[in-house]
Amino acid sequence: MRAIVQRETGSPDVLRLEELPDPQPGEHDLLVRVHATSVNPVDVKGRKNQGLRQFPIVLGFDVSGVVVGLGAKVAGFRVGDEVYAALNLFRHGANAELVAVDSRSAAHKPRSVDHATAAVVPLVTVTAWAALHDRARVQPGQAVLIHAGAGGVGHIGVQLAKLFGCRVITTASRDESIEFCRALGADQVINYRTEDFAKRVLELTNGEGVPAILDFVGGETLAKSVDCLATGGQLVTILGADTGGAGQKLLFKGATVHYEFMGIPTWRNVRQEFHAGILRNAADLIDRGLLRPHVFRKLPLAQVGEGHLLQETGHVTGKISIVVRE
Amino acid sequence: MRAIVQRETGSPDVLRLEELPDPQPGEHDLLVRVHATSVNPVDVKGRKNQGLRQFPIVLGFDVSGVVVGLGAKVAGFRVGDEVYAALNLFRHGANAELVAVDSRSAAHKPRSVDHATAAVVPLVTVTAWAALHDRARVQPGQAVLIHAGAGGVGHIGVQLAKLFGCRVITTASRDESIEFCRALGADQVINYRTEDFAKRVLELTNGEGVPAILDFVGGETLAKSVDCLATGGQLVTILGADTGGAGQKLLFKGATVHYEFMGIPTWRNVRQEFHAGILRNAADLIDRGLLRPHVFRKLPLAQVGEGHLLQETGHVTGKISIVVRE
Repeated sequence: MRAIVQRETGSPDVLRLEELPDPQPGEHDLLVRVHATSVNPVDVKGRKNQGLRQFPIVLGFDVSGVVVGLGAKVAGFRVGDEVYAALNLFRHGANAELVAVDSRSAAHKPRSVDHATAAVVPLVTVTAWAALHDRARVQPGQAVLIHAGAGGVGHIGVQLAKLFGCRVITTASRDESIEFCRALGADQVINYRTEDFAKRVLELTNGEGVPAILDFVGGETLAKSVDCLATGGQLVTILGADTGGAGQKLLFKGATVHYEFMGIPTWRNVRQEFHAGILRNAADLIDRGLLRPHVFRKLPLAQVGEGHLLQETGHVTGKISIVVRE
Repeated sequence: MRAIVQRETGSPDVLRLEELPDPQPGEHDLLVRVHATSVNPVDVKGRKNQGLRQFPIVLGFDVSGVVVGLGAKVAGFRVGDEVYAALNLFRHGANAELVAVDSRSAAHKPRSVDHATAAVVPLVTVTAWAALHDRARVQPGQAVLIHAGAGGVGHIGVQLAKLFGCRVITTASRDESIEFCRALGADQVINYRTEDFAKRVLELTNGEGVPAILDFVGGETLAKSVDCLATGGQLVTILGADTGGAGQKLLFKGATVHYEFMGIPTWRNVRQEFHAGILRNAADLIDRGLLRPHVFRKLPLAQVGEGHLLQETGHVTGKISIVVRE
């Protein structure tokens, strides 16, 4: 099969089209003909730094495609099924014509959208869902602060939180992003470049702060967020940001800090069904018009490096889709 | 009433016997004649540093005594009842002949032990219970690492975890403390001065680490504990220690860090019943001989400063009780 292969770290030039042997599906795997994949920040990170994996590496950790082969222990899928999944970050990804996908983490793709749109859904939706419902355990009527609501994870997170009955406060900076967050249903959008977000959140919550904060940004954002967290509040980072010297503040708030890494179920083979359940529900929400994944740009596989560069600008609203097969 | 009053921070000399007006119970309060209180690390901290409160301050945040007055809205208690409670850290404590106690956080004292023993129970038991059951949510059969099992919170935590069916690994250093931990029922005691505790825990868990770690020590212990935390593990600090630069490690483990501060329910007047429920259950466990609070030393109120010095040595197994009225 043809694939975009990485044999060293560096600029997008390290991503090269090559011929690789077709993947051999394991007993729980689906062999999937890739129609589309997407660019996530984890692709850019993997291209630039690899501490854990050996080359050659195929990036692209979302897939939407068609089942063309089945492992011996697969249940619930047949050849010809249209499926989508977030892929194991420690196996070959979907920047390729074929990919092996653990069937326990996969689901049938939403029928109402094409592969290019379905492919932008899995990784960010699993992440946003886990952050909101498995970690922060938000409740209807609760306020939640979602950092970077216009981004890949953020734009799904804002919609899921609204569907669940939360009051959503989010952050953005460019006019286009702010407008996009409003269109997603965010109740308040804070321009973090012109306002101190923590101060503004306190104003918006009568000085109490919010009971749940999802940090999809990283860096100093998590530590700074402690200032506008309510007593007993839940902080979620998907980036493993440090809380710095905020230990005493966190203590006086009785806070909880969750380090949410969506890669764990497939990497560690624990609770892969958690992914599948989220994706089945997301497909249903999409088909009912209740969840709208946003494709900012579609690029062919050969231009995935351009997708990386776009992703790195931080000016993507929603997601970049990579079309492998029209 | 007579009380040990603090009007400045400093050495135990700042703790002076004075005459203060009797406390006036609020509508939810019990007025309690103090028979005994205890020394907790929070007393020593409060004596040395006060950022949040104004002088004069009366320390002593445990009480066992007899109800001598009732606020208008008190239910479930009568004058003459023997009660015990962990006190609001932001009101006058029980280093005094009388103290006002929010009845919603209080419980009837265990009948099988005297006031001097009952008084060492509340603060550490609420803390250990909250850490184990409200935060880490340990399960029977799970391994739990409890740092400083011979200390005040630790010696209750080890016993509660064993009662709940956990495998308990704990740390201590002196022969006396190690022996004490074994007598409490700890399955493994690691001498953290002669062994690398994280390495040893990994050996004891086939390299997987433990799903729950309670840090009752502070400092570097929390950050170092990440190395022996299992995937999906729960870390609890009662001291607001920083996790330092461990963010990425915590992320790859999908960890959760809980900042447990037992002072919040009474300070913030949220869920004070949580304290009362724990103390009712603790009284029952004590009366059935299933939970054994350990009194390391009894001192009269006038010698509470000596209790502080003892506490600061770190060589106390269990707790120091302060007897106010024989």
